[in-house]
Amino acid sequence: MDQRYRALFVNSLSGFKSANLVGTKDQAGLTNLTIVSSVFHVGANPPLMGLLMRPHNVPRDTLENIKQTKVFTLNHVNKQIAAAAHQTSARYDHSVSEFDATGLTPWYSETFSAPYVKESRLKIGLSLDTVHLIEANQTELIIGRIEEVIVDEAVVTQDGYIDIEQLGSVAITSLDGYHSTQRIARYSYAQPDRKPEPKG
Amino acid sequence: MDQRYRALFVNSLSGFKSANLVGTKDQAGLTNLTIVSSVFHVGANPPLMGLLMRPHNVPRDTLENIKQTKVFTLNHVNKQIAAAAHQTSARYDHSVSEFDATGLTPWYSETFSAPYVKESRLKIGLSLDTVHLIEANQTELIIGRIEEVIVDEAVVTQDGYIDIEQLGSVAITSLDGYHSTQRIARYSYAQPDRKPEPKG
Repeated sequence: MDQRYRALFVNSLSGFKSANLVGTKDQAGLTNLTIVSSVFHVGANPPLMGLLMRPHNVPRDTLENIKQTKVFTLNHVNKQIAAAAHQTSARYDHSVSEFDATGLTPWYSETFSAPYVKESRLKIGLSLDTVHLIEANQTELIIGRIEEVIVDEAVVTQDGYIDIEQLGSVAITSLDGYHSTQRIARYSYAQPDRKPEPKG
Repeated sequence: MDQRYRALFVNSLSGFKSANLVGTKDQAGLTNLTIVSSVFHVGANPPLMGLLMRPHNVPRDTLENIKQTKVFTLNHVNKQIAAAAHQTSARYDHSVSEFDATGLTPWYSETFSAPYVKESRLKIGLSLDTVHLIEANQTELIIGRIEEVIVDEAVVTQDGYIDIEQLGSVAITSLDGYHSTQRIARYSYAQPDRKPEPKG
């Protein structure tokens, strides 16, 4: 297999992926922003998220900034900013902020030093917990602890579920596919003695 | 926060998640099947996928079977089997095969001993590479090496991208939301000096 063909093919296999922009700053205060499709849930208590960094398709600036400053933000990509978000994956010089280059707007909460994306409708501030090396291919797994969540309360349902579809959050396929979604159902908690029922 | 509220809330934060059924067998030949939303791409060369196992919401049978037999399958959940797939998360006794309990059909390739899901339209056979312990919350990260992929060639585009939307693959939100998708665009490879263009 050709290298690009292989990358597109294997990246398709896991299924739909989350679309997040990682916001960081270096020690001199220069902001950095990059799209990632490798964010995943790690645990609810303590609240943890993971982010896999592949040296070849994530700018190293992000990883270095996280290691140096110990904080970063995750910002859901929505349909309106999908093209700009994708553009953050271009290899800009270290001296260029992807906020400036793509027209996305840095925004700060009162308590957190890493930059959020103003246009994102679900923003998460995280502190670095640990970095694991995945020996199989020398990638690095960042584990972050959730410090704050900024989201409109109107999309948080009574049971805690956040309706990210209503926020316009998108899903990614492979390296370059972006998708909006339509909810099929939320299913009731599965139990051995009954069939799952759609709820809500 | 109440425990169930917290679980739904924090599980919502990462964004859309892949929906896969993990097929395994124990050493006595009893099949096991469970839905997971924690599968992610690790690398294309060598071809690797990751799967995070949280002791509290994935039956331990799956993890034990993978460690013992060193093989497992991943099977994309599509819209037609979403309810049955969700039902595999019920806590059946060890002696019950979730294939029997949910009506999904075990299927075997000529070369691979772990069971696939016949109704799934993208099936992946993997061998166990490594298990990493995530110290932050004592979860286990399974790294698997892709051994075979079973998919209709008609949905593999010329450049290697697999059109999983055409397969009807679904995305998951939080613990119980299932979604179909609509492609917004595939964007061209991002370069600093030009804007991303939709392609295909």
